[in-house]
This record gives sequence, structure tokens and C-alpha cells, in this order.
Amino acid sequence: MPNPYLTGLDKNAANYQPLTPLTFLERSALVYPDRTAIVHGNQRFSYTQFYARCRKLASALAARGIGKGDTVSAMLANTPPMLECHYAVPMTGGVLNTLNTRLDAQIIAFSLDHAETKVLIADKEFSATVKEALTLTKVAKPLVIDYDDPQFDVPGELIGEIEYEDFIADGDPNFAWQMPDDEWDAITLNYTSGTTGNPKGVVYHHRGAALLAQGNIITASMRKHPVYLWTLPMFHCNGWCFTWTLSVIGGTHICLRWVRAKAIWDALADHEVTHLCGAPIVMSTILNAPDEEKRDLDHTVEFFTAAAPPPEAVLAAMADAGFNVTHLYGLTECYGPAVVNDWNVGWDELPGPERAAKKARQGVRYAALEGLTIMDPQTMQQVPADGETMGEVMMRGNVVMKGYLKNPKATDDAFAGGWFHTGDLGVMHADGYIQLKDRSKDIIISGGENISSIEVEDTLYKHPSIQAAAVVAKPDDRWGETPCAFVEIKPGKALSEQDVIDYCREHLARFKCPKHVVFTELPKTSTGKIQKFKLREMAKAG
Amino acid sequence: MPNPYLTGLDKNAANYQPLTPLTFLERSALVYPDRTAIVHGNQRFSYTQFYARCRKLASALAARGIGKGDTVSAMLANTPPMLECHYAVPMTGGVLNTLNTRLDAQIIAFSLDHAETKVLIADKEFSATVKEALTLTKVAKPLVIDYDDPQFDVPGELIGEIEYEDFIADGDPNFAWQMPDDEWDAITLNYTSGTTGNPKGVVYHHRGAALLAQGNIITASMRKHPVYLWTLPMFHCNGWCFTWTLSVIGGTHICLRWVRAKAIWDALADHEVTHLCGAPIVMSTILNAPDEEKRDLDHTVEFFTAAAPPPEAVLAAMADAGFNVTHLYGLTECYGPAVVNDWNVGWDELPGPERAAKKARQGVRYAALEGLTIMDPQTMQQVPADGETMGEVMMRGNVVMKGYLKNPKATDDAFAGGWFHTGDLGVMHADGYIQLKDRSKDIIISGGENISSIEVEDTLYKHPSIQAAAVVAKPDDRWGETPCAFVEIKPGKALSEQDVIDYCREHLARFKCPKHVVFTELPKTSTGKIQKFKLREMAKAG
Repeated sequence: MPNPYLTGLDKNAANYQPLTPLTFLERSALVYPDRTAIVHGNQRFSYTQFYARCRKLASALAARGIGKGDTVSAMLANTPPMLECHYAVPMTGGVLNTLNTRLDAQIIAFSLDHAETKVLIADKEFSATVKEALTLTKVAKPLVIDYDDPQFDVPGELIGEIEYEDFIADGDPNFAWQMPDDEWDAITLNYTSGTTGNPKGVVYHHRGAALLAQGNIITASMRKHPVYLWTLPMFHCNGWCFTWTLSVIGGTHICLRWVRAKAIWDALADHEVTHLCGAPIVMSTILNAPDEEKRDLDHTVEFFTAAAPPPEAVLAAMADAGFNVTHLYGLTECYGPAVVNDWNVGWDELPGPERAAKKARQGVRYAALEGLTIMDPQTMQQVPADGETMGEVMMRGNVVMKGYLKNPKATDDAFAGGWFHTGDLGVMHADGYIQLKDRSKDIIISGGENISSIEVEDTLYKHPSIQAAAVVAKPDDRWGETPCAFVEIKPGKALSEQDVIDYCREHLARFKCPKHVVFTELPKTSTGKIQKFKLREMAKAG
Repeated sequence: MPNPYLTGLDKNAANYQPLTPLTFLERSALVYPDRTAIVHGNQRFSYTQFYARCRKLASALAARGIGKGDTVSAMLANTPPMLECHYAVPMTGGVLNTLNTRLDAQIIAFSLDHAETKVLIADKEFSATVKEALTLTKVAKPLVIDYDDPQFDVPGELIGEIEYEDFIADGDPNFAWQMPDDEWDAITLNYTSGTTGNPKGVVYHHRGAALLAQGNIITASMRKHPVYLWTLPMFHCNGWCFTWTLSVIGGTHICLRWVRAKAIWDALADHEVTHLCGAPIVMSTILNAPDEEKRDLDHTVEFFTAAAPPPEAVLAAMADAGFNVTHLYGLTECYGPAVVNDWNVGWDELPGPERAAKKARQGVRYAALEGLTIMDPQTMQQVPADGETMGEVMMRGNVVMKGYLKNPKATDDAFAGGWFHTGDLGVMHADGYIQLKDRSKDIIISGGENISSIEVEDTLYKHPSIQAAAVVAKPDDRWGETPCAFVEIKPGKALSEQDVIDYCREHLARFKCPKHVVFTELPKTSTGKIQKFKLREMAKAG
């Protein structure tokens, strides 16, 4: 008997539309027209205004010839134009490429060339880098639009053809933007910060952006009208897609040009912020603020962190300060976070160290990610769920990138065997939660034994006088490698190398203890990740 | 220049998976294994058990040959097997057809034949109807599985080949179910209750089910671990997709075989129910419970209602009783609710009648529905957003059905012009909210003037002695039609026909006032909708 469900039940415009985050903003402008969408200094934009500004920008870009497959790059801080780019560029059919504002001219030039950027919108603050980058590009000769922030005294010069507000001034607030032809069409392009070789261009599609934007709401248990503080750079995986998330539920974006303690505390208290995200460095900034900059909060704030498991001591201090910390994990290739340390209510009853051990695990897939596992990358077999057997973290699903732009080799490698190879090593626990045991490049092999730098770092973070710590491999003639610790001491405290080593010996197997300790400020990326490759160079040199 | 985003960035298993609600249950079983998924009488099933029971059922069905495109029908109350069918049947590639348990044998037989049902799972309570239906089918000769509820004393007899628990007993709890080949594959089949002609078979797909399941969470601002009481029949649009919603966030299903006041109040209090859905009749059941059956609630309960706008008096009484009522609108063809009266915070400040007028509007699209408008069905032009110009409610998007099974003519008509024609008439207000002005068949045309029966009913509901009311057209030689009111009087109250007419004249234009008033219990469908066609027959006859 033929399958009756395969006949006369095809897709048409009434029952099939491309998934895209663009419809979220259209809806919020309809449903919450007067609600504040964006706060930036003294500026306030309602959803009506936000949507109109996006359509004006889109129409102005379209008038300059931007259309399907054209790249618009943005070198912007967490300001209104950056949010507007997230809607306006895809409204034209174009692709938004957000640039990491901390990178140097050479890498920016590489990105502009590789992306074939047609328009570049750049904040005055980054004019020196952009100006230099534009002298270095070989292919890209973009139209440059300056953003001269009216709300802050920003250093730099105007280097473009036109200022942002002037550019959109003549745009059409009723611009009839088009849905994407296909939900698989590209929406954004994010370059990885790759420590070796050229950055890779990670391409997102409308489908994944719409699904992760909604996935954030579900994962974060966000109710209607959240107030979201932009401590996470929007250039980082499109702000983990929260740039789009808020439009689903009429939230308020609190922009933040500079991530400084006073501005954060003021925003938390004055705007009653409900949610914020950031690397662990943001937690340090919050916790280590001078007392006179801290403010009383009358509500619990949800903080989502990624990049490294939050140390127990930091979690406790955050709880005392009124924050509930959720630990996420992801990569540029999966739209930001796609794994969550989904907290089991029963774990609240565990003793402190066991509780912290649970919290340190990366966790389980978002509902929006269809598959997450740990495999032997050679055999593509799952490793036993024993919490010990190492393998590579593998993902599959609709919030995994389209691939790397103009890099079929890297794309094929990343997707070998039908799974996305994250390059991160980890284990699977008996309950199905995964835990990174180390980024593959961070593993220390000493006398044939594997040492997890995370385990050593966790120990160091428990020392009452240590503010931050990172551990890398130092080449050693006898052992191959030995652990070398880099330590930031808390203000007013003192520590010797031997103090640190003795403390580790109390808590760790002897072979895992650092042989060398360096007291220094840790070098960090613009997104707050500790730059271990620099530490490795230092360890090798000294 | 060729579009670089169209090359080397294709779909593969790592970055594209079919959307389906099946992965939600798999995830909850992993993440919340010990959490209670189902409460039924004294039965408790954890997520581990729920998932295992679904896989056992799926494997037992597969062993009987159920596979892609095969229909499994369920004639079940709101019990665990009904929930299990929602996962197990699609796990086999089959299609679940839930039958309205209040329908008669003839319509059930029609459905079984039309659906080509291979397996029928039937509750003992409905054995008389099912037994008769099976004598009437011409094509379908399904395997019949009885469900003999161990928790309740259910009348009826066992008429099938095997009992449900015996059927799944030998199933494989680790059954390796397959993802759908395509997210467009059918997942369920729901027959409309169509008052004229044969019912139409509305086909849902995995994509829409996954999207509306998540859309419910976002629309209802549901946090993790809701407790959901099944006052809405699961056979009704798959329980508005809440059958799948709860698996996304590890919620608890509180089953309810019989929708009676005491059972509802006990569940609300004992299980700390957070959410429930139902037609207005469920609100009446709750509010009109004897005092000794009511319980104190220490939390606000979210109630979602559809079918008819909640009258102001009912809303006020519900608020007093501790419920927050949200007004939804939808049809079988859009997976249940796809429109929400999204409440603007500022409206709380409005005077009572204006507030009630806002609450009576059907509202705006779910974020999961891409398009909602009011059009002239002839010209397919939007009507002016003036709150007055009538047109037909039109929808488009991913939560609109695949089409009607084996009915290409009806499917084509429903999707004419690239929009789904709901058959409901309404207006669009200036703020973009839609309001039904009347189901097209319920309009009363008196002396050439259109009368909205909803408007007249709203007036009647405000009368302190009226419990429920419905207004239909009565043929009239002079006027063509006149409004005829059917009224239920509150216990202990008395009213005359003239009292009712006088009251209406105080509040309505004279031509809108009922010319006849009938005091009677209103006939309702199994889902609580007032059966206006019966009232029309009565009006015509008497």
C-alpha cells in the first residue's frame, strides 16, 4: 500500500516559511511598540524605533548595492549600531561579519579580504587599527562608515565616507525587506581567533540563528521582557545569539561600551538587569570592584559563563553577591553556547566539593543541539561513559555552522564522519554529562602520564591568596614536559614559589604539581580567555 | 562576482538534523532521569521510565509491522498510554491518530477507514463505541489493544487482542528508534470535528510539532520543570502540543481521566500545578465547584484558554481564585494555539471595561507563526487596521498543517493564495491585534445589518444572574434573521425573557437585542465548545 502521507501534502507559502530571527524583531515591534529595546548612555530606543532604524540601515545598504551574499563588516563596540547590523544586514540578503575589536590591523585586513567586504562600519575608537588595515587589504576596498558615538567621549578620528547616523538618516523606515530565500542562507560570518595560522571564517545560517536564539530562552528559563546587560562582546559569536534572543520576548538590551566594574554595577542596579553573560574575567571584574562602586541588588541576577569552568571559590563569592551562575560551553562553530551544565535540583544538597565538581562539568546538549558525545576521533566510536576515558567532544545538529568560508578542506575535516569535531578533549560521566579534561593543545604529558592543567588550576584557585592561575607545559629534558604555573596574587597578599608548590603537594599527586611558578598578570584575549600560547612561549623561554 | 556563501557549505549529518520533538524526550531522560514525568492516580513514572516505556511500545509496534506512513489510532483518555503514543508511534516512523473520545461509532469508523488504521489502542471506557465502530469499518481491520486502567474503576469490556501493559511488556526498553527521514514527515493526524460533511484529516509534521512545542514554552514564559495538569484533552490537537512541550524542560504531566472539579482542585493543591489549559467550560467547572471541594492555593496558576474570549466576569472570578488567564486562539490546522493575546503591562492600568475589551481580542501571532493577518478572501488584500472592517483570518508559517489527508481539493482551497484560510471572520485593530468578530457561520444578519453574536453574548455574561449564554440567528420573515439567546441561569436566581431583553436594551443598540430568549442548559462539544449548530436547529424549530 502506498504511503498516503507522501501525496498532496507538499510545502507551500502558507505552511512553510524559512526560519529566521528577522521575524522576531518584526513581531516585537508590532506587539511591544513602546517598550524600550535599547538603552545606551542616555539614549533610549523603543521597539518601534529599533525596527525603524534597522529598516533604514537596510534600505541605505541596499541603495549602495548590498544584496544577497555580500559581506558587511562591523568593527563596533556593544552599541546600538551593532545591534542594528544584526537585523539590517540580513534584511538585505547580505551577511554580517563582526570583527573582534582587539585584533591587530594585519588580521583585520586578512578578514576583510577573505570576506570580500563591501561595506565596513567602524567605531571611531578603532580608527587607528582600521585605517592601517585598509592600507593592507589586497582585495577589499569597502565603503567605510564611521560610528561617532554621541553618548561617550571616544578617542580616534573619522576615517570613512560618512557617519553612521547620516548614513541611515535618509533610509526608509518602511523598507520592504525580504525573508531569506532559504533558511540555509548565510546570515553571519565569524572569524575564529585561531592561535596558529590564518583565522577561519565560520558561516552561520538563518535556521541555526533562529533556533539558538530560542534555545537561549529555554535554557536560561527567560521570561518575557528580560533586561540583558551586554558584558559579552557582540562580536563574539553574535553575542551567543542573544542579539536575536531578546527580540523573541521583547527584552531590553543594555549596551556597554566599556566593561568596567562601576558601569556594570550601576547598570545592574539602575536598570534591574536580569541576565548577563561573560567569560570568568567578568566575574572577577564584578567581584573585585572597590566597595564604593558596588551597589545593593534587590533581585537575583542570572549570569552565564563559558570558556573555563568557574572555580568553586568564585562561584561562592558570586552567590554571596546575588548572582546565580550557570556554566555553558560552546565554540564559534556552534553559534556560541550549545552545551549547558543543566543543574539537577538534588545537587544543591551535596557537600561543597562534590557540588563544585558537578558545577565544573560542561554538561549536556541544549535542546536545540541534536547530538553531543565523546568519541575516539580515529574510530568514531563513543568512549565509555566512565568519567575517565578521554576522547574528543563531538556535536551534531542544527546549531552547528554551515562550514568554513572558502575552506572546503577545513570544513570536510571538521565534519568527518558526520559529526563536528570540536578539537576539545574530554570525558563522559556515567550520567551523560561531559567534562572537558583539557583542550587538546593544553594537555601536559609528563613522564608518560597525562596531566590535566584544569585539575592543577582548580587546586591553585582554592588557595586563599591566589586571584587567578593558569598552568601550561614546560619542555623538560628528563620528563618530556612538566607543569608550569602562572599565578596572579590577590592584592595585599604574598606568596613564594615554594608556598605554591607545597600547597599543590598537599592536594595533588606529586607528578601533577608544578615544578615552576611564575608570578605575573595573565595575558587574556579580548573575550577574557587566558592566552595559553603566550604562557607556553614564556614557559619555554624561561 | 559569484556568491561565496553558496559553495562548499552544504548540509550534512553534522550540521543538519530533522527537527522533531522525539529528541526532547531523549534529552530529558538523559538530563532529568529521576524526575517525575507522569503522575496518574498512584502511578509515578520518572523520565527514565517514561522514555523506556515509549521505546518498549515503539519496539512492540515495530514488531507488528508498524513503520513509515502507517497509522496508529488511539481512543484514549488523558492517561499515560496516550502520552507514550505521542513518542512511540513516531519513533517507528508511524503516524499517531488521536480520536475524539466523545464521537459516535459512525464517525470513528469513518476515521479508521480514512486513516487506514493498522493498530488501534482503546481505553476500556470507550469499548462500546469502538466495538460498534469496528463492525462499521469497510477498510480498516486494525489490531486492537485494550487499555485497562489499573488506577481507576472504569466501566466497559475488553474487546481487543491484548491489553496495553501486556503488549509493551516484552518490548525493548533500548529500542534503537530512528529520527524521521525528513522533518516534513507526518507525525500525527487529527480529524476536525466538522459539523457538516465528513471530518477532514489534518496532518502535522515533525518540524511544526517541534516548533510549536517550544513556542508554547516561550509564549507561556514557562520555566524549567513546570507541573502541567491535563484538563485539555490530549486528543485535541495533540493537547495543543503540550504533550511534547514538557519534554523540552523536564516538566511533570498530571494525568486526569475525568475533568471534574474535585480532581482538579486536589491536583492543583497536592501537585502544585503551575499550568493548565482548557476551554471556558473548565473555568466554569473550577469556579462553580462546591466550597468543600475547593482548596487553598499558595501560588498563582497559569491558565490558557481558547475557543471563546473569556467574559469579563469570569476573568475577575478566576483572578480572585488565584489564576492568571491568558487568551489563546487557534485551530486544528495550526497545531492548536498559534495566536496569543500577548498582554501589554500598561493595560493593567486601564478601567475594567477597556481592560476586558483588550482581553477579549485574540491577539498576535506566536513567534513560531510567521504570518497572521485579516484579508478579503476574494482579493487577498489586507483589510484596513481600523477595528471595524471585517475579513477572514489568514495565517502562514511553520506551525500550519501539511494539509488534509487524501483531500487535495480541500487542501488547495485552504492554502489558496499562499495563506491558510481559517474560515474565521475578524477585524484588525490599529495596534495589529486581531479580534474575531464571529465565526462566519455565526453571523446574524438582521434587516441588512450585521450583528456580532459575541457582542451580544458579552452583554449577557455581564448580567449578575446569568451563568452562561449563547446567541444564534433565528429565521425571521420580516428581518431575515433575528438574534435568539440561549441562557443558563445561576443556581438560586430567577429571570424572565423580558428581564433579559430589557437588560440588553440598556446596553446594546436595539437591533442587536435578542427577540427571543430560551432558558436551557447549553449543549457543548467534548472540548467544551458550545454547539451552536444545535442551538440554531432549536431556534429554527421553536
